[in-house]
Amino acid sequence: MRARKKKWASGELANNPRIIRNADEYVGRIPQYFSNPNPMYLEIGCGKGRFAAQTSRQNPNINYLAIEREAVILAAAARTAEELGANSLAFILLDADVLLKYFRPGDIQRLYINFCDPWPGKKKRAKRRLTHEKYLTMYEELKIPELHFKTDNRPLFEFSLESLSESDWHIKNISLDLLASEAEGNVMTEYEEKFSSMGFPIYRLEAVPPFMRNK
Amino acid sequence: MRARKKKWASGELANNPRIIRNADEYVGRIPQYFSNPNPMYLEIGCGKGRFAAQTSRQNPNINYLAIEREAVILAAAARTAEELGANSLAFILLDADVLLKYFRPGDIQRLYINFCDPWPGKKKRAKRRLTHEKYLTMYEELKIPELHFKTDNRPLFEFSLESLSESDWHIKNISLDLLASEAEGNVMTEYEEKFSSMGFPIYRLEAVPPFMRNK
Repeated sequence: MRARKKKWASGELANNPRIIRNADEYVGRIPQYFSNPNPMYLEIGCGKGRFAAQTSRQNPNINYLAIEREAVILAAAARTAEELGANSLAFILLDADVLLKYFRPGDIQRLYINFCDPWPGKKKRAKRRLTHEKYLTMYEELKIPELHFKTDNRPLFEFSLESLSESDWHIKNISLDLLASEAEGNVMTEYEEKFSSMGFPIYRLEAVPPFMRNK
Repeated sequence: MRARKKKWASGELANNPRIIRNADEYVGRIPQYFSNPNPMYLEIGCGKGRFAAQTSRQNPNINYLAIEREAVILAAAARTAEELGANSLAFILLDADVLLKYFRPGDIQRLYINFCDPWPGKKKRAKRRLTHEKYLTMYEELKIPELHFKTDNRPLFEFSLESLSESDWHIKNISLDLLASEAEGNVMTEYEEKFSSMGFPIYRLEAVPPFMRNK
């Protein structure tokens, strides 16, 4: 990382009011951070933050929490949120692997995964994909009632469909070309806009875990 | 239909040895038509027949049965089978809606649906799609252990994924761009070759019904 970039990010990480720096103090009671009883939606891997910021602007009665494991990217996302005037949106520097430590079942009412790392190639790496059975089990333990998933990566989407199916999640509102289907209210990530404008299809689905059957 | 075409088709329908003309005599015991104990695979809507013919050439130890509800198309398929020297492959002029009358549970070991009518548009028409819940229930009643499905129609594939998921079928070996994924051993239909060569993605999946779980 260049020194200039590092300095900028450090400032943002230290001072941006949307970053929860003392997350460890909120372990097991993160929703209380928001000081209101509204539902909390979680985005894993928020990138530069535009999706979370714009979505929160459109839905002021939802608390949005975005986690990201790269500090510089988190800093950029938090700045974006300030610039775009997001509503109830906070950030934590956190890896998806420790969700069970920080959240209790029922804390999260919806999970967003947008353009996550596809971990291409070797089967061994598949375990790192956020739609691998290992993670789906984690989301189920947290009693997350719905997952919204987008990617431009075809092999990742194919893998995710099979993984969700294998774990008995139900798939709904699927789109194999989000732009062509003109999905109403689709908020694009920075990455999505770039690849979508290049003509690549964007894949999207919603999925509901087995415990939500017959509800 | 032009007279010349009609005449040609009539001849084929009357004389092609692969067409089972007395299907009603085989009701409930169609596998016996093949005079061997090999598994029977069914293709619903075989079009011009190249897929069935080539697949049967590659798998001499499988009995293939292809049904088609349009007489002229069935005639073309049966002629293709003769020309390509298919192995154990027979045809019946039959609509998918009457499967339960002709077949017993366990008769069919695999079901192929290739580029079926997408019945676009109105929700009411969705009932005619061969992956509608109505048909999936029929396939389950017939104890068909696996479905192989291909289409170039995006809305139909999206519909099918949701329909299969909703009916608790498991999806596997999915491809959202069959040509790009270079699926080994893929046998193209006439229709598939045309649309694939135009650059349109071909979607494919295999699905396993709920009763096959844990087998």
